Amino acid sequence: MNVMHHDTQFAAQDIYPTRLADAEKRMPRQDPVIWSDWSDDAPITRDEAAGYERDGYLIRRDLFTADEVRSLIAASADIRADASAIRAEDLVTEPGTDAVRTIFRLDDHSDIFARLARDARLAETARFLLGDEVYLHQSRLNYKPGFTGKEFYWHSDFETWHAEDGMPRMRAVSASVLLTDNSALNGPLMLIPGSHREFIACKGETPADNHKSSLKKQEIGVPSREILESLATQHGLDAATGSAGTVIFFECNTLHASNGNVTPFPRSNAFFVYNAVSNAVQAPFAAPRPRPAFLSHRGRIEPLKIHRDSLA
Amino acid sequence: MNVMHHDTQFAAQDIYPTRLADAEKRMPRQDPVIWSDWSDDAPITRDEAAGYERDGYLIRRDLFTADEVRSLIAASADIRADASAIRAEDLVTEPGTDAVRTIFRLDDHSDIFARLARDARLAETARFLLGDEVYLHQSRLNYKPGFTGKEFYWHSDFETWHAEDGMPRMRAVSASVLLTDNSALNGPLMLIPGSHREFIACKGETPADNHKSSLKKQEIGVPSREILESLATQHGLDAATGSAGTVIFFECNTLHASNGNVTPFPRSNAFFVYNAVSNAVQAPFAAPRPRPAFLSHRGRIEPLKIHRDSLA
Repeated sequence: MNVMHHDTQFAAQDIYPTRLADAEKRMPRQDPVIWSDWSDDAPITRDEAAGYERDGYLIRRDLFTADEVRSLIAASADIRADASAIRAEDLVTEPGTDAVRTIFRLDDHSDIFARLARDARLAETARFLLGDEVYLHQSRLNYKPGFTGKEFYWHSDFETWHAEDGMPRMRAVSASVLLTDNSALNGPLMLIPGSHREFIACKGETPADNHKSSLKKQEIGVPSREILESLATQHGLDAATGSAGTVIFFECNTLHASNGNVTPFPRSNAFFVYNAVSNAVQAPFAAPRPRPAFLSHRGRIEPLKIHRDSLA
Repeated sequence: MNVMHHDTQFAAQDIYPTRLADAEKRMPRQDPVIWSDWSDDAPITRDEAAGYERDGYLIRRDLFTADEVRSLIAASADIRADASAIRAEDLVTEPGTDAVRTIFRLDDHSDIFARLARDARLAETARFLLGDEVYLHQSRLNYKPGFTGKEFYWHSDFETWHAEDGMPRMRAVSASVLLTDNSALNGPLMLIPGSHREFIACKGETPADNHKSSLKKQEIGVPSREILESLATQHGLDAATGSAGTVIFFECNTLHASNGNVTPFPRSNAFFVYNAVSNAVQAPFAAPRPRPAFLSHRGRIEPLKIHRDSLA
């Protein structure tokens, strides 16, 4: 058992200061990208590990059977169809409508998604990448509708998790399991390959309850246009496309965004953030108080128990 | 000389009734897609003609030299830099900002773009596709900025030009000359291949001065989501991507749209609508009065004189 006791004190050391009063600042990453040494036993190939190290993300296809993917899609439809049963704080709707955009604490709302989070095909890879036992920092179901899906602006998840949740180091990874086919045209996840190797300390202090607006439209904790243009020109842009069932692992500091979607084709995914147990959140590094539990699990931390049988 | 005299009377016959009070309606196209017979003298290859006939658009690359493309890009930057000199009715800005989004009557504001409109590489192809002498129904410079570029929703240009401008038949073609590189990610033109073979009569009467809002966000004259989803599922979606200098010819009735653009990379093009001289606009078929001249040239019609020398 590992009960957190840092919530009421400021972290002793902050190697990634951000939300600066005067100006944004670029600094090199201080942490490894992969926290394990690769060996033949690793859950990903040597090339995949090298790609993740270089780019900050890894796309894996055909990890799940067609039956498993069908079961996940059906479960996600059931959850969205009965969103009235979801507690209000876990639910985000499209601006101006009551269409479901995000359901947080997905693993609380669904057995199969709780099971998916603990599946070896995700969690074992997370353990390898982070070199530690892992727990879920956040989980959610994302649904971007066709015709009216809105954009998400460029950001590093780590910058927010560090500033507002108190995550000390870059030792977390997200796994996005696609529940619809994603083409370059229906608002896929876009990434700047290599951007994870720099920390962009952002300008501007964090307002109280920043998450209430940042979930709809992020304005604090985003790099300037000048830096984004410079990074995208240097590294290029990539879109994480693939058919339903594809899994995108992306490092917590990789800059990403997505465009809106006027195509008729919705975009949905299940999203799990794995954090190293040794990297559990403390007091926020740059916010008056921690974000609520649906965004950042805190308190009792238990390593995920990994399952190896079939999902469906 | 061909002075239009139909502006104050309703068109005698309407083979494409639209803006219906009760419900939208699908009907087959009543016009040829290509109004000439292909021969060895044609300005496009037999395969290109077949592709245009089948898909409703044709992408041509490397028509212009690098020097010509550079001159066009420089001219477009000059025009946008001095937008204060442009008459207000020809200028559209991004919602909520004063950033230039569109400059209409581009051929009035720039010698090189007036020349481009008359270039054989565009106008000769338009003459072939339309089987007639051609004139400019509309011309404009489009600029979708990086980071904040807004989407354009699905529509057939012909539906609007017929309803609001009084264009009788499907005998017009647009040529979009890319002035920036367009990838699938920075809000490129998306098309539904084959959608030009059906006319979607839209539901809803045209409000007075509809163009004042439709240029920012089109709400009248768009097909229902059900029809769009059905067509996109049947035909798929395509994105017209290419480097600066690429030319996209698209038939006036091909359904198209574009997503917003949060990438750092702006998107710009010069856009010319060629109409057959024999298809000159009459009184609007489904609007109280014609749209203004910057959207729809009317009055004296002169066939474009084609130029064959270099642009730069």
